[in-house]
Amino acid sequence: MSDSTNRHRIDCLQYANWSEKVFRQMREGRMDAVHVTIAYHENFREVVHNIETWNTWFERYPELIFQGRNSDDVRRARETRRTAIFFGFQNPSPIEDDIRLVEIFHTLGVRFMQLSYNNQSLLATGCYEAEDPGITRMGKEVIKEMNRVGLVVDMSHSAERSTLEAIELSERPIAITHANPAAWHPALRNKSDDVLCALSQTGGMLGVSLYPHHLQDGAACTLENFCTMIAELVEKMGAAHVGIGSDLCQDQPDSVVEWMRVGRWTKDIDYGEGSADNAGFPPMPSWFHGNLHFGNIEAGLSKVGLSDTEVAGVLGENWLNFFDRSFGPND
Amino acid sequence: MSDSTNRHRIDCLQYANWSEKVFRQMREGRMDAVHVTIAYHENFREVVHNIETWNTWFERYPELIFQGRNSDDVRRARETRRTAIFFGFQNPSPIEDDIRLVEIFHTLGVRFMQLSYNNQSLLATGCYEAEDPGITRMGKEVIKEMNRVGLVVDMSHSAERSTLEAIELSERPIAITHANPAAWHPALRNKSDDVLCALSQTGGMLGVSLYPHHLQDGAACTLENFCTMIAELVEKMGAAHVGIGSDLCQDQPDSVVEWMRVGRWTKDIDYGEGSADNAGFPPMPSWFHGNLHFGNIEAGLSKVGLSDTEVAGVLGENWLNFFDRSFGPND
Repeated sequence: MSDSTNRHRIDCLQYANWSEKVFRQMREGRMDAVHVTIAYHENFREVVHNIETWNTWFERYPELIFQGRNSDDVRRARETRRTAIFFGFQNPSPIEDDIRLVEIFHTLGVRFMQLSYNNQSLLATGCYEAEDPGITRMGKEVIKEMNRVGLVVDMSHSAERSTLEAIELSERPIAITHANPAAWHPALRNKSDDVLCALSQTGGMLGVSLYPHHLQDGAACTLENFCTMIAELVEKMGAAHVGIGSDLCQDQPDSVVEWMRVGRWTKDIDYGEGSADNAGFPPMPSWFHGNLHFGNIEAGLSKVGLSDTEVAGVLGENWLNFFDRSFGPND
Repeated sequence: MSDSTNRHRIDCLQYANWSEKVFRQMREGRMDAVHVTIAYHENFREVVHNIETWNTWFERYPELIFQGRNSDDVRRARETRRTAIFFGFQNPSPIEDDIRLVEIFHTLGVRFMQLSYNNQSLLATGCYEAEDPGITRMGKEVIKEMNRVGLVVDMSHSAERSTLEAIELSERPIAITHANPAAWHPALRNKSDDVLCALSQTGGMLGVSLYPHHLQDGAACTLENFCTMIAELVEKMGAAHVGIGSDLCQDQPDSVVEWMRVGRWTKDIDYGEGSADNAGFPPMPSWFHGNLHFGNIEAGLSKVGLSDTEVAGVLGENWLNFFDRSFGPND
């Protein structure tokens, strides 16, 4: 195997309870870039506060992290032994009902936005709705605007028809930053072969998830099983279209998963992928607890037969190529 | 005289009723950069709307204007025969009581902020207050933050003591983007010799104003008188520290000058520099109605004896040098 330190490592979805400890683990795990969620249900003004909080961390830990704005920042991160942090939303709530906030947020460095999160949004349908009428009128306009400025459409939590329509409508490749194939583990959050096929045929990217509810056998999923699933994806989608989006929620209290699921849209409890007797964050697989463990996946992928180039692609180079094409204005 | 088309032209303060007509006149007048006011009394959310409105214009008139973020954008504007638009606030109201909004706005492209506008603010005292207790506790913190990110302190509408303290406290040169010497025309908005001296000794810039209330004889001020005032300033402050900040309010209805003066801070009328029988915008001098007329000032400055280099400095090169040093992070 070639020297793996020459490979970029990118995780295209995390929402940890951010701390110096987590940032140090990113660096120790040689993560060059992490796409972090800065909004689940927040409105515009609340997200600005979240960005301010990130700015506090950028100012406090400049030797560990800095804000990523374009793909060259990933390369700069590796050269300076730091981690570039890219902002994303799991819900379009921050743009409220104002299409012009797309550009405002792009200027503030936001690079991914899900068109819906589990529920119906102003733009698209979420994966837990009973009906999926597809991309809305505003959704079509917002996709065009996201394409124009370079904000990536992410359909990780969206429903099937909306996802297929988004892939079709978007002039630029889209991403599903964190999900697995439904054929491997049937779950409303995982994606059908139709979606995976349409995604890869249009140059899009899938980030495979390590969130236990997305795994076959949950936390008991073996590394070999997980890596075999990736190898089959590489076969199905092509080696260039698969990366990692771990959905790592390190050190988060259970109140946070409740906020993710419930936001302010219901006064009752919604358990999402969990259940009344398993309401909190699920335990993680023994071989993946966080940023220190990407090496396990790297080794596991080699073991199931992926080539060095394919492994490097999944661990980061594929996302880097996607970043190269996705974050600037559409010329 | 050398070919004046080799000189950069910068106007460091305008608040026109923006339109394609005005943008075309900027180009016809060969303006490479204009610092435009995007807030008088607006709060954070309202200013975001104002930026959205500017984004609409940038999208609609890309052959005439684009957003300026750094000094090289001024050079790019000349090369591409367009005008770079730099954002500024005449009041710190957009940062509300939140110092972290300084960085948010810098990221959104804001490059100048007045610490006060006529009245007391959270940061400093305005020129119409009876008492001037100087820079406030928050003001000192905000000046440090503005220095850090590269947002220029502007004291055009501030009171004497606050202005002298801001010059002293700021680690980086500050600007008075639009005002004239009080010795030439006594007005609360014009600046004392003490201020002008402290400003130039610390590398700061004065933009001379063409707003009639700042001119000797008002709209009847002659071009020769105005240019002689500039020549004396060049003598007093040094040729590198004088530029233009016209305070042009082209095509604005009188309701706008009322908003500038009254905002939402009083239920009564405040006439500012005007009066009950002269409440609206005053008429402009015959030789300066807008962006087409900077050539008059250029010719007038040569006529009163300024060298080609000095004229080029006042018309734009001095601001360009100041931009070079001011808009990036403080290393």
